This record gives sequence, structure tokens and C-alpha cells, in this order.
Amino acid sequence: MSKLTDVPKRILIGRALRSDKLGETLLPKRIALPVFASDPLSSVAYAPGEVLLVLSIAGVSAYHFSPWIAVAVVVLMFTVVASYRQNVHAYPSGGGDYEVANTNLGPKAGLTVASALLVDYVLTVAVSISSGVENLGSAIPFVVEHKVLCAIGIIVLLTLMNLRGVKESGKLFAIPTYVFVAGVFLMIAWGAYRSVVMGDTMHAPTSDFEIKPEHQGLAGFALVFLLLRAFSSGCAALTGVEAISNGVPAFRKPKSRNAASTLALMGALAVTMFCGIIGLAMATDVKMAENPAKDLLHNGTAVGEEYVQDPVISQVAAAVFGDGTFFFVLLAAATALVLFLAANTAYNGFPLLGSILAQDRYLPRQLHTRGDRLAFSNGIVLLAGAAILLVWLYGADSTRLIQLYIVGVFVSFTLSQIGMVRHWNRHLRTEKDQAARRRMVRSRAINTFGAFFTGLVLVVVLATKFTHGAWVALLGMVIFYGTMSAIRKHYDRVAEEIAADEGPSDDSVRPSRVHSIVLVSKVHKPTLRALAFAKLTRSDKLEALSISVDPAETKALREEWERRGINVPLKILDSPYREITRPIIEYVKGLRRESPRDAISVYIPEYVVGHWYEHLLHNQSALRLKGRLLFTPGVMVTSVPYQLQSSELAKERAKKRQEWNAPGAVRRGPVDRRPKENSGGKR
Amino acid sequence: MSKLTDVPKRILIGRALRSDKLGETLLPKRIALPVFASDPLSSVAYAPGEVLLVLSIAGVSAYHFSPWIAVAVVVLMFTVVASYRQNVHAYPSGGGDYEVANTNLGPKAGLTVASALLVDYVLTVAVSISSGVENLGSAIPFVVEHKVLCAIGIIVLLTLMNLRGVKESGKLFAIPTYVFVAGVFLMIAWGAYRSVVMGDTMHAPTSDFEIKPEHQGLAGFALVFLLLRAFSSGCAALTGVEAISNGVPAFRKPKSRNAASTLALMGALAVTMFCGIIGLAMATDVKMAENPAKDLLHNGTAVGEEYVQDPVISQVAAAVFGDGTFFFVLLAAATALVLFLAANTAYNGFPLLGSILAQDRYLPRQLHTRGDRLAFSNGIVLLAGAAILLVWLYGADSTRLIQLYIVGVFVSFTLSQIGMVRHWNRHLRTEKDQAARRRMVRSRAINTFGAFFTGLVLVVVLATKFTHGAWVALLGMVIFYGTMSAIRKHYDRVAEEIAADEGPSDDSVRPSRVHSIVLVSKVHKPTLRALAFAKLTRSDKLEALSISVDPAETKALREEWERRGINVPLKILDSPYREITRPIIEYVKGLRRESPRDAISVYIPEYVVGHWYEHLLHNQSALRLKGRLLFTPGVMVTSVPYQLQSSELAKERAKKRQEWNAPGAVRRGPVDRRPKENSGGKR
Repeated sequence: MSKLTDVPKRILIGRALRSDKLGETLLPKRIALPVFASDPLSSVAYAPGEVLLVLSIAGVSAYHFSPWIAVAVVVLMFTVVASYRQNVHAYPSGGGDYEVANTNLGPKAGLTVASALLVDYVLTVAVSISSGVENLGSAIPFVVEHKVLCAIGIIVLLTLMNLRGVKESGKLFAIPTYVFVAGVFLMIAWGAYRSVVMGDTMHAPTSDFEIKPEHQGLAGFALVFLLLRAFSSGCAALTGVEAISNGVPAFRKPKSRNAASTLALMGALAVTMFCGIIGLAMATDVKMAENPAKDLLHNGTAVGEEYVQDPVISQVAAAVFGDGTFFFVLLAAATALVLFLAANTAYNGFPLLGSILAQDRYLPRQLHTRGDRLAFSNGIVLLAGAAILLVWLYGADSTRLIQLYIVGVFVSFTLSQIGMVRHWNRHLRTEKDQAARRRMVRSRAINTFGAFFTGLVLVVVLATKFTHGAWVALLGMVIFYGTMSAIRKHYDRVAEEIAADEGPSDDSVRPSRVHSIVLVSKVHKPTLRALAFAKLTRSDKLEALSISVDPAETKALREEWERRGINVPLKILDSPYREITRPIIEYVKGLRRESPRDAISVYIPEYVVGHWYEHLLHNQSALRLKGRLLFTPGVMVTSVPYQLQSSELAKERAKKRQEWNAPGAVRRGPVDRRPKENSGGKR
Repeated sequence: MSKLTDVPKRILIGRALRSDKLGETLLPKRIALPVFASDPLSSVAYAPGEVLLVLSIAGVSAYHFSPWIAVAVVVLMFTVVASYRQNVHAYPSGGGDYEVANTNLGPKAGLTVASALLVDYVLTVAVSISSGVENLGSAIPFVVEHKVLCAIGIIVLLTLMNLRGVKESGKLFAIPTYVFVAGVFLMIAWGAYRSVVMGDTMHAPTSDFEIKPEHQGLAGFALVFLLLRAFSSGCAALTGVEAISNGVPAFRKPKSRNAASTLALMGALAVTMFCGIIGLAMATDVKMAENPAKDLLHNGTAVGEEYVQDPVISQVAAAVFGDGTFFFVLLAAATALVLFLAANTAYNGFPLLGSILAQDRYLPRQLHTRGDRLAFSNGIVLLAGAAILLVWLYGADSTRLIQLYIVGVFVSFTLSQIGMVRHWNRHLRTEKDQAARRRMVRSRAINTFGAFFTGLVLVVVLATKFTHGAWVALLGMVIFYGTMSAIRKHYDRVAEEIAADEGPSDDSVRPSRVHSIVLVSKVHKPTLRALAFAKLTRSDKLEALSISVDPAETKALREEWERRGINVPLKILDSPYREITRPIIEYVKGLRRESPRDAISVYIPEYVVGHWYEHLLHNQSALRLKGRLLFTPGVMVTSVPYQLQSSELAKERAKKRQEWNAPGAVRRGPVDRRPKENSGGKR
């Protein structure tokens, strides 16, 4: 039946591409950086703008606080990077924040982190695509005029690509990421050179605009609150930093050390780019307003609804390189591309986290197969659906979506860091070696500071963003949490119910004989095969059973049975209403009543067909009968398949599907054995 | 998996009502008449209006042709009734036109009739509901203002009622039908009394309107064509006459004779009502126009888009009883109710015809169970969907829908009558008894005339209505025909493929030994049960197979296995990617390669659960594995069910479902054994 649900997918996305096994290809640092850094680096495309946007509420004069906010973000970035460097050393298995929280703080914290991460993946897609569309729009007006449509179109495209199974390579990530990084650095350098050395005054497109402050002369608590809000928005630059801690197994050896240095490099790049863009924005007089339509004034009048506020990065590029120049367009394209790649990382992370959660029985068990096609597809579709919903609800407005974004990130940062503190405490209790103890104490200090700082930011984010949209993210987390714990509870209850009793016998009445029944409608190959198989497995009693729905057919069956001399007794049940299921069920129940110690084995000849629509034409009665028989205790049901010619097709298809590799494999590395328990220093 | 698709149904329509078995309750004539006559009698609610409507094209002067058209309809009605009286005698099994055509004219004619009937059922719903809404609207303006909405609402309501399984009784049909018939007769009598005896001049609401003829002074061929078109429209009065021929088994004995006299009575009632209404319409100066908005003039100006043209029956009632009087409202309500009942008959007929077609392998085989719930539900939903589509496309305008209606009816009338002629010819070849021969010759004469007349009408209908909408009905028929013959072709091809060869052995390599494999994930009750069952059915080799996805779990499994002293060897396959299916398939294939004469029997412990969502949490891997295993030749798959506590619920539910009776049973009677072959005089 699962074939049926596959059909719309098949029509849309075609057959899965065959991609070769990854084998033992591990990532060198120069490739690992772009693979993991597209998400965190891309966030500098929107984070600086968000800071200015919030500050503009108090008027353009508040912009002079922006360097201080940049400093705070930089400090936070260093803290987080330093903290996660501890994580990758202590947990090289790739389980990430979920594993850290689960192992050290218990399942509830783990599930909280998991819920936060799932929400985050959805928002990564929504925010990155929206921001990417805005950046693309600064070069191509059509895109920004049909923002929601373009954003949803790109999500659909990414989804189809991922469902189809793109053949990935690290280089695919490397080129746009390096172009983006190089472009931003070139822009910063060229801007600095022009302004410092050549003494040019560069003007952003909005440099001659004015901002009408929504609240004039903010001071005291209100100002602090505003600055905190601006800082929270700036924290968007930190999203995606944790990605490397999930990907340690994909690094070349020494895995943990390479991961740690990549992390450090990534942090350094991110803060430089973030500060550089903020600095250039100040130098070129970029003006951003939260409500540009009415708060942004040009020649004294509001710019109105028509006005499209370009992202800071593109305004700065216009000032530095000149609007429409080659470098401007190149940077806009690279920015958009990196943002789309960042969204793509969520497509890889979401199903992977799902498979880890499935292993811990928080999600349906069958999802646990790594890179399982069906599980992967379902995860992808869920992710895309949620992201499209958000993009549509929020009009693909990255500013509004970012309000939802940062909560989840800091929930997992904070819990992960608290978990690390516990981790070190536990290890310090047993560790005797002084050098090791010193290292642990130092790590603990870093993680403690990280936990404190990220926790503080979480509180700030919650306080400043709750009504602006953070509640939506929290609601999403609650829904994920509730669903997953319900699933786990169900599995636990079932596990208890089916736990084997001690002692050899546990079924109240253990059957001692088998009575086999072969269901027969006509004498044809499938029936003969079922009879042959049933005879092979020797049972205490064997009979063929047929339901008489038409006297003429029944007569013909009896005659054919005799003519062929089939040495199995044929029993025929009458069914005046042409029912199949009921007479058989009643017959089987009757047998069970007569001899309760007999197990009943029912053999059903089944057709194996190749097309989904053929399923509708065959085996439906068998399927329903089987469904009903399974409810009858003491019965087992054997399908004896008969492969029709058309089934060859389906076999080929299934083979191809088996060979399919889930996208995102390049990030995960070839080994994925996650030890169940604490994987700290020693086990 | 079928459970999943049931869920939305369950939410909408609740659990099926339990209705008691019909037992041997057969219908006396006084109940049979309303049960079967609601459809044909209700058509007098719209047929007279359609005649006037078409005539109005040539101006109000053309109305004087209407009595002649009424006469033609009456003659046709008598012909059809007389013809079908032969049918019910010759084919008392309830197969109806499909059986007659199939038996006497071959499967293509049968399938054509079946396609026509299926289209007809859809149109019966669309036309009757639309007309019912119009009649209701003459008393309740809101209804006519929201015509499409109300029509679709009523279709949805009828659908839910039918899906739920209404407890039916003949009386349910009797009351509104008798009220309707009595009301119309009272109206005719009172109208005749007022006009003839009291000399009153009654005025319909439109009596002082004028009609602007679309074609002034039509003559010659154009006039004949118009009259033929008016006649075709009047033929709408004949729809539903064939219903009784499907319902002979529901009559009390002597079934055929009772059915024949009911048919005659119904015909007499229908023509009297039809002529009476036409007569009253003439007497009260009813004006109907095809395009009332521009062709109907009041005080010299067109009435415009706002104007709602009430049905003839309600205009006449307004003239005779007075608008808004008790009798007027009662008649409007009874008319609407009878029309809704007429629509309801299609809900019974459609799935029944489907089950007959399934028996002949034109539709999926599992639909053949009589009153099968799932088959019934699917049929109902298909019918309702198609009817809603038509109502929506045609704006619930009965006049436009009727253009589509009559084609199908006359296709089946004509083919059925031609079939009857063949039937008598065949019987006359062998019949020796002179009295019987005389009866047969007489019947043949009647059927010949019927075939000729209905064939002529079919040609007229096609010629006059084709561009007005009949092509839609024909297209529908072609689609049904094509689908059903494709299904039949598929079944035939498969039947050929699986036909057993002569001689005792037909599988190329007949297996001689069985190698049994029990799939094990943990040692729990379901596993132990599967092991116990596998041991009972003695095979040549028995082993337990487990897939190692986690070294710790695998170790625990091995230890438990030894500790419990389970005397079945445990084989463990490694699966670095945590896959389940692939390693097992490869292992099984390996076994088959090693010893091709071994059959492999795979035992899968399965959980039986009670809720649909639990299905998502269990057995998914098993299901997929089973799907893949069935493609591997020489393998049989045994499900060993373990009933979880929650499965009790589902068992209860299944039991209730088994006891469900399909609506419409009252029309079909308790016996439903349709002999495959000709069921004429002697077999």
C-alpha cells in the first residue's frame, strides 16, 4: 500500500538518481569549512541589518550603539565557539546538542533540545530562503516583487532536489561559500581602503534618507530594553554554529581536533564579516527602518508602501562597488546562493535528527535506518511543508521570521552547555591524572561561562522577542515535544506489555498442533504453488478451503480438483451474500473453539504485481482477510507470492530505491554508529 | 493500511449504525410502488416545464403543440412500461438492463449499458437535487438564492447518510411519495373542478407575462426539429422506469407478476400526473422561457437576471391552491422530498451495479461482495463527487442538466429492448408448446416496438441535444467504458498468465525442502510466539535471524538467547547503515542461490494494534520487508500476530463493520444470486 502514496511523489520527482556509495571519503578542512559554514556564515547577510533595524526605532542617533552591540555579538560568538570546541572533543560521535543534553541532563532536556532543533531546521529554511530572495531581489527587481512566490518556488525546488537525491560533493558547497567569503572580505578591504587611504566618502542608496523615530528620546530602562532587543537580533549571526558538532565523524583524522580548528576558523570569519559589514554600514550611512513605508523619509516624506528596503549587505556593496557593477551582482548572487545552501543544510539535518530520535523511540521506529528513503522523504516533506507555511504566513519577510528563529538556537545552546558542565563534573569525580584534570577544569570553566552567557541571551531573547513571534517558535517546540513524548510513552507501554516472562513457557495455552488451511478460489498456478508450499511445511492437518459465491464456479472447482487428483481435501463454505471474509473468520474461530490447542495456519496465494494501480485490482480481499485474521488469536497467516510478469518492473524499481543515498551524507561521514551511553573521555 | 483512509470518513460520519438483518422481509406492492416509483414519478416535477421551455423558443403560440407532445410522451411511456413488463417476467433475477444486454447482445453491449447506467445514476443525483432545490426554492426564497450551495449541501448530507448506513424501511419512502402523488392528483382534480364546474379562471404567477420568441414564425423542418426537441425534453418523465426491473427479487411472490403490475400502476400514475400538469399549465397560462432573463417580458420589459423562474408544478399549484397556502407549501415540500428520495435511489443503485460489474471483472474484484462496506463507500463517494462536480459546473440548473440526462436512459432502454427481441427469438427456436409460443411472439412484438420506438427517441435525443450537453454524458460513458474494459483486459491477461498447466507439475523447479527463518529483534512475547509457531510447522531447517544495528543490543540479545536456552540457532547479520530490509533480502537470496530447491519460509512477528496511528508506529519495517520478500521467488512470508491490548478495540470495530448493512437493501430483496448465464424460461 505504501506504493500508492509514492505515486504522486514519483510523478513529481521521477525515479531516484543512483549515486555511488560514499565509501570512506572524509572531508579535509578546506572542504569541511564550506560544507558546515554555509549556515553560520550566511547569517551575516541578515544579522547586521536586524541590529540597525531595531536601533532605528529610537531614531538614527541610536545607530551609534551599533559598534557596542557588534562587540557583544563578537564576545558571544567567541564564547559559543570556545564552548563548542569542548563539545567536539568530548562527543566526537556526531550526536550534537541532543546527545549532550540527553546524556548529561536526562531525556527531558534531550527532548527539549531535539524539539528546539527541529523548530530551528524549519526556521533555517524559512529565514534563509526569505533572506536569499531579498538579496537576489536587490539585483533582480522581479524577485522582490513576487517575494512569497519566489521563496516558495525555491523551497519547492530544493525539496524536489533533495527528494530526488542529489549527488553531493563538498565542492558544490565550497565554490559559492568561498566566493561569498572572498566577496565580503574584498568589499570590507576595498571599502576600508577607499575611506581610510583615499579618503572617499561612500554613500549607501539610503544615505540621504531620514528615519522618523517611533519613540523619540528613549532613555533608561526603555533604551536598555531596545539595546537588548537589538543585541538579540544580532544574535541571529550565531545560528548554525552548532552544525559542526553534529558533523565530527565526517572530518579527517584527527577528527575532533580538525573539527575544533574548523570551528575556530569559522568563528573568526563570521565575526570579522559581521563587524566589517556593520562598520561599512556606519561609514556609508545605511538607513534601515522597521517599518520603512512610514518611518523612512526621503526629502521629508515617507517613502510609502512601494519602497523595498534592500538588505544591509547589498546597500553596502552598492556603496563600495557601485550599484549594478559586476562585483555588486556577483556578491548578491553569491549571498543568495550561500543562503540557499544554508537552507539546504536543514534538509540534511532534519531527517538525520529524526533518525537519531527514532533510535531513541521518540519517532516511529522505522525512521531509524540511516538515509532510509521513505523516512528521509517524509521528513523532507514535513520540513518543506512547515517552512512554506511560515514563509506564506509571514510574507517571506526575513525580519519577521528572525523573531521566531533565535529562541530555538539558544535553547539548545544553553542546555548543551549546561550538559557539558555536568559532563566535566562527572569526569572530574573519577579522573586522577593531574594534567587531564587541569584540562577538564579549564573546559568546565569555558562551558560554564558559555552556559551562563547563552542562558542570559536566551532570557533576553525571550523577554524581547516573545510577543514579536518567539511564542510561535515555542509553540512549535511544545508540539514537537508533546508528540514525541507521546510516541515514546506508547512504545514504552507496548514494550512492557510484550516483555517476555521469565521461565520457559509464557503463552497461557501453548499450541501443540498445527491445522493448515490453504485458501483456494480457482485451480491456477498461484493456488498450486500455495498448496505445494503448504505441503512442504508439514502440519498436523492440511485442507484447502474455498468460498462458494457462485454454484457454477464451485462445481467447476470441485471437478477440476478431482480431475487433477490433488491429494488435499477441499472444503467449501457457502456464502449467500458473496462475502469472503466472514465465512472464513467464522470457520477459523470454530476450529479454535473445537480444539483450542491447535494453531491455525492460513496460506493465502498472493499476486505480486508491478504497478500501483494493479494493487487495486488484486489482493484486496486477501489484504482485508489477513487484517481480520490477525485479530484472531492462535492464527498465523502465510502469504505465498506468485510473481506476475509485471512484477519484474517493480523489482527493478525497488532495487534502484535500495541503492539510493540520502542527500547530506557528505556532512555526516561514513560512520554513524552512535554509542547509546555517555561517550566522554573513557567508557 | 486501509484503516488510514478510513479515518477521515470515521471523523465525518461516525461509526456505522448497526441495522438488523433484513431476513425475509419482502415488499408488498403498496410499499414497493413508492420504493421504486420515487424516481420515475418525481420526474413529472420537471418534465412538463422542460416541454414548455423548449416550445417557448418559437413563442407562446407554440404552446398549443404541448398536448400533442404530451400524447407522444404518453405513448412512449406505455410502450416502455409494456416492454419492461416483458423484462421482469423474463429476467426475474434483478440484473436489469445490463444483464439483458450482456446475455443477449454480448459483453460490449452489456458494458455500454452499464456505462450508460453509471452516468445516469450520477445525473439522477444532479438533476433530482437541482430540481428539488428549485421546488423548495418556490416556497423558501433563501434556497433559490443559494442554489448551488444548497444543492451541494443536500448531496453531502445524502452521502453522509448513506455512508453511515441509514436504517431503511419501505415506509420511509411511502409517506412522501404518497403525499406527493395525492397532492398532485388533488391539484389536478381541484383545478379541473374549479375551471370546468365552477368556471373560475385561474392565473399562474406568470400568466400576464409575455414571451419574446427567439425565432419568430418557425416552420417546416425548423419547427419539426423544435417539436422533436420539446419531445426529447418531455422524455425526462421516463427516467427511472427501468428501476423496477432491477428490483424484482425484492417483491413478494409471485415476484414477476407483482413487479409487472406495480410497473403498470406506476406508468399510469406518471402519465396522468404528467398530462394533468401540462393541462393545468395551459389552463392557468403558465409562461416558461429558456432564457427568462431576456425572453420573458412583464409589461413589455424583460424581467432581467434577478427573476427566478419557478417550476411549472409550483406555478400551477400557486394558481390552483393560491400562492403560500397550506396546500401549496405542502406540495412544494413533498415534491422536493420525493426528488431527494429519487436522488437517494441512485446511491443504492450505483454500488449495486458496481458489485454486479465486479462479478464480471469489469471493476476491481473485491467490490463483488454484496453490500460490502468498503466497496459501497467508495462507490458512494465517487457518485457524490461526480454529482457535485456537475451541479457546480452547471450552477444547479436542472434545465441544463436535463440535456445530459436523457441520453443514457435511452441508450439502456434501446439496447435492453433489442436484447429482449433476441431473447425471444432464441427461445422461439426451441419452444414447442403453442400457448407458450404465442405468449413469446406477443412479447417479442411488444419488445420490438419498444426497441424501435426507444431507438428512434435515442436518435432524436442525440440529434436535438448533442450540442446542448448530451456530449458530456456520452463522454462520461466513454470514460466508464474505457476504464472498465481496461480492467477486464487486465484480469483476462492475468488469468491467462496464471492458468495452471495440464499435468501434475507446473512450477519449473518444485522445492523439496523448507528452510524457515524467524526474524528476531528482541526476546519478547511476540518473538517467542513466532518461534513457537515456527517450530510447530516442522521445516527442514529452522533458524532465528537478527539484524545487528547496535552492538550493545545485539550482545544483550545473544546473552538472553543463551540464558533462556532457546533451542533455535540464532544468526546475526551486521548492518552498518542500520538497514533492516537489505541484509535480510541478501541473506535470503544467498540461501536460494546455495540450494535452489529449498523454499524459504520467513516468519515475521507482527503487532496487532487498535488505532490507525499505532499502525504508523509498528510493523512498518515488517510491512516493507514483506513487500520486498514477496518479489523474491521461492519465498513465503508468515505473519505471526501478537495482539496488543489496544487491538481489542479494533476487533470490536471490525465486528460492527461486518454487521453493517448497505443502504438500499430494501430495494434489492434478500436473495441476490445472479445466475451467470441466460436465465430465461428454461436453463
